[in-house]
Amino acid sequence: MKNIVSRQIVLAKRPHGNAQCSDFDIVSTALPAPAEGQVVIRNSLISLDPYQRNLMGNAASELPPIDIGQAMPGPAVGVVQVSRNDKFAVGDTVVSWSGWQEYALSNGDDLQKIDASAAPLSTALGVLGHTGLTAWVGLNKFLEPKPGGTFVVTAAAGSVGSIVAQLAKLQGQHVVGIAGGPDKVRYLKEELGLDDAVDYKAPDFCEKLARALPDGLDTLFDNVGGSMFEALMPHFNMKAQIVICGTIAQYGFPGAAEGPNRLPELLKAFLYRFVEIRSFALPDHFDSMPAFLAEVTPLVAQGKIKYSEHFVDGFDTIPYAFLKLFDGRNTGKLIARVASAESAGQ
Amino acid sequence: MKNIVSRQIVLAKRPHGNAQCSDFDIVSTALPAPAEGQVVIRNSLISLDPYQRNLMGNAASELPPIDIGQAMPGPAVGVVQVSRNDKFAVGDTVVSWSGWQEYALSNGDDLQKIDASAAPLSTALGVLGHTGLTAWVGLNKFLEPKPGGTFVVTAAAGSVGSIVAQLAKLQGQHVVGIAGGPDKVRYLKEELGLDDAVDYKAPDFCEKLARALPDGLDTLFDNVGGSMFEALMPHFNMKAQIVICGTIAQYGFPGAAEGPNRLPELLKAFLYRFVEIRSFALPDHFDSMPAFLAEVTPLVAQGKIKYSEHFVDGFDTIPYAFLKLFDGRNTGKLIARVASAESAGQ
Repeated sequence: MKNIVSRQIVLAKRPHGNAQCSDFDIVSTALPAPAEGQVVIRNSLISLDPYQRNLMGNAASELPPIDIGQAMPGPAVGVVQVSRNDKFAVGDTVVSWSGWQEYALSNGDDLQKIDASAAPLSTALGVLGHTGLTAWVGLNKFLEPKPGGTFVVTAAAGSVGSIVAQLAKLQGQHVVGIAGGPDKVRYLKEELGLDDAVDYKAPDFCEKLARALPDGLDTLFDNVGGSMFEALMPHFNMKAQIVICGTIAQYGFPGAAEGPNRLPELLKAFLYRFVEIRSFALPDHFDSMPAFLAEVTPLVAQGKIKYSEHFVDGFDTIPYAFLKLFDGRNTGKLIARVASAESAGQ
Repeated sequence: MKNIVSRQIVLAKRPHGNAQCSDFDIVSTALPAPAEGQVVIRNSLISLDPYQRNLMGNAASELPPIDIGQAMPGPAVGVVQVSRNDKFAVGDTVVSWSGWQEYALSNGDDLQKIDASAAPLSTALGVLGHTGLTAWVGLNKFLEPKPGGTFVVTAAAGSVGSIVAQLAKLQGQHVVGIAGGPDKVRYLKEELGLDDAVDYKAPDFCEKLARALPDGLDTLFDNVGGSMFEALMPHFNMKAQIVICGTIAQYGFPGAAEGPNRLPELLKAFLYRFVEIRSFALPDHFDSMPAFLAEVTPLVAQGKIKYSEHFVDGFDTIPYAFLKLFDGRNTGKLIARVASAESAGQ
């Protein structure tokens, strides 16, 4: 068997502040022949996610970044091309953790077979993948449903936020989404059916927020952090429950934060309003995948959970497309299509 | 029966910043005759507590303050003088919520009989009263014991902190106390047997703290807040658990906090270190009193839990003594003795 030549997008240097295209290199490597137990996957759909910025270093995350020269890891959908592993056959469609590369070797530990008849393959990277699982775990394992209570989601038009918002609505909560710009606000109200939506880019955002939260906030699923979190703090009700799921907008980068010190105010909210704030590491909850899929797959099939996907085409496009995640203009799950539908087995 | 004339210490005006003696008035009132179901109590021991500052208004608490002219509420030990309630006999020693007054009427709901043979009566206001219950509830209901883990207590020489520290030590945790001044540090290490103690008034406090926490901090019972909390934040380990029990030193008063905004750093600790911060309202846990007393009364009797009491004498002294709580010079539970031992039934 001839060696396969595979392209990878690797970290060329660590960004300071926003990532740039020049922080990446595209390199071609000869894939080693698969050892006993390994499979060769050809990727067709590659997930582009905000947390991947953290893997590049000099970022908000306190976890160690990847090495210079390493391919960006992340979820991808592909088809098994060669198998030396009994659990996988040539032609199986799988989701893997192989990231930004055309072909990958795997021992099978990171692989999950996908039923291509249940839903479009791309959903395995979004609403029925880690994105949806993140929404579902945060909602079901870290927040108590409060029917009739006010549930706020930030970055509500984003891939996680839009799923959280719809699941919370199905639980009978009064759901208010926060997003940037009138188009996203319209999408949240008209397409997703949220009770209200507030444009954080509006000059009178704080007044609009107060009008949308006349009874305060009982639950917050926060994907944003920073000054957005600060704007919400005065609205926390007694025993408000909060999940911090991301801090994409404000804290991508280290350094002293500006403005008055708002920590004392938060400590007071703990002490006198008994708010609860929690976060979680998704890998601790991978075993919830079957329960999540059993509940959410039919909701997606019935159109009760809507999702939005944004496709870009071509492997070379990935670095450019990735940067779009950080300018607030992206809506829906961002996915790069990197192989033809035929070769991906669709 | 002649009407009893009772003196009360009432709120004369709301302080701005620190309370002053002139914020209080001492007034004499004729106690109404007890109605059916009521008892008359003569107080002998009156508890002086930091949270009473919050009841005066313009304070950290977001709960409504007492009215101008109202007597300061709080725990007190007294003896039943007249009873029109079947549950209480003349001569019973009780702890009540009657506060800063010589005599009080009660319908019995706030009363608990004390067994004067089990421990000194004053302990019903401190180590075996709400102070001890606060320590026990925070420790047992909101923190998981981590044997061998590092447990930090702030205001560790204070009435709540010293009990928390000793209970955590009995659970097998490595307990580090923080307190102000070499005398308190010596007390914590030599009298209470903590593993280490750090003087927050030392000019090299942050270095001393780092040396005392070489493996970080797994659990924090915080009575202080503010810049003390900020100094501890870098030491939070993964999944560190924190109870916020008070913010006596830094946040007694409203207004913009100075210094850089440390909120982003805390949100990052939630997101990447999965810290848990909680607080609680003691009245939600009054039903734990029997379980608490069953566990802690023998520990106090055996000398395994040491406690320190600071008595002041005379009803008139109360406002002056109360202010001592806020200058960091008080050690141990502060109690005013306001009636002779005989008349109090001791």
